[in-house]
Amino acid sequence: MGLYDWQSALKEALRKNKRDAHNRYLQLATVREDGSPANRTVVFRGFTENSSQLCMVTDLRSEKLAEIALQPMGEACWYFTNTREQFRLRGELTADGASDSVQRRATWGNLSDAAKAQFFWPEPGAPLTSTPSDVPAPELPDTPPNDFVLLLLAAEEVDHLRLRGTPQTRFRSRLVDGLWQATAVNP
Amino acid sequence: MGLYDWQSALKEALRKNKRDAHNRYLQLATVREDGSPANRTVVFRGFTENSSQLCMVTDLRSEKLAEIALQPMGEACWYFTNTREQFRLRGELTADGASDSVQRRATWGNLSDAAKAQFFWPEPGAPLTSTPSDVPAPELPDTPPNDFVLLLLAAEEVDHLRLRGTPQTRFRSRLVDGLWQATAVNP
Repeated sequence: MGLYDWQSALKEALRKNKRDAHNRYLQLATVREDGSPANRTVVFRGFTENSSQLCMVTDLRSEKLAEIALQPMGEACWYFTNTREQFRLRGELTADGASDSVQRRATWGNLSDAAKAQFFWPEPGAPLTSTPSDVPAPELPDTPPNDFVLLLLAAEEVDHLRLRGTPQTRFRSRLVDGLWQATAVNP
Repeated sequence: MGLYDWQSALKEALRKNKRDAHNRYLQLATVREDGSPANRTVVFRGFTENSSQLCMVTDLRSEKLAEIALQPMGEACWYFTNTREQFRLRGELTADGASDSVQRRATWGNLSDAAKAQFFWPEPGAPLTSTPSDVPAPELPDTPPNDFVLLLLAAEEVDHLRLRGTPQTRFRSRLVDGLWQATAVNP
């Protein structure tokens, strides 16, 4: 199993599935303040420089941030529809809202105008008062607004299942003393 | 908002997205024994008779069952790729492994042979010893084997987001004293 590494496998999946934008969507589970799970779709926004962390973005007003302040562990479940494979990525979530963060500024710069505009909408999840289309389109700034938060997942454990092919294959990887160890397990 | 109901909306989404089999896959979050979240893809296997619960299946040997014994609350996140809408369904999970369960027997009967065969594979997640293709194809019984468990999610709260269209729309529904109450909220 010396040749398997999940980061290469995930990058290969991204490449092979890139024709459908939905393959950049993954489901992120956290734990609510009452101890029950929460789960929602988020968009993958790239890796940090050394590929060790996955980047997503969130709104300072969303429930995720209060949840990870109490329980920082999260698990992302990422299913690729074209190659029929699933990655489960488990690890600590951190929020980066720092005004001097280079990564945060770069991620903001790469967002579409539509994605940027959401950070100027009324509070997510609050009862609908005005509709977003009533709100005048904001002047979109070059520097990220206060509500824009980078969300980073530092995987410690990765479970990779390939449904295509007979037999199916499944690898479980764990970060042990700073090194990844992968094992083939039963699907 | 009197006319919105999430069950009709979910059935409509199923109908409009049925050309892609992956639209019957959803991500189910539970909480592990250590209080951190778990998240994996499961297949939607239909509703219970009165449409109040979602059916999935699992293996008696899987980690899900130990998790829900301690924390029965789960949250399913279901993203439909063709209509671009997300349902988050939160509620209690129950396991039905009863040999006299009519629903369990019926769900078994509706599985494909490939799905049935998985219940005769070596223990999921254990280190790979033999590959599934080494295991002789089992005689697939008409009655479900012991390891076949029906997993039911009784939603208490549903968050439905439609990304398509301007503005996006979002409804939050809650079960209050046995009646569903829906509110339009900010996306």
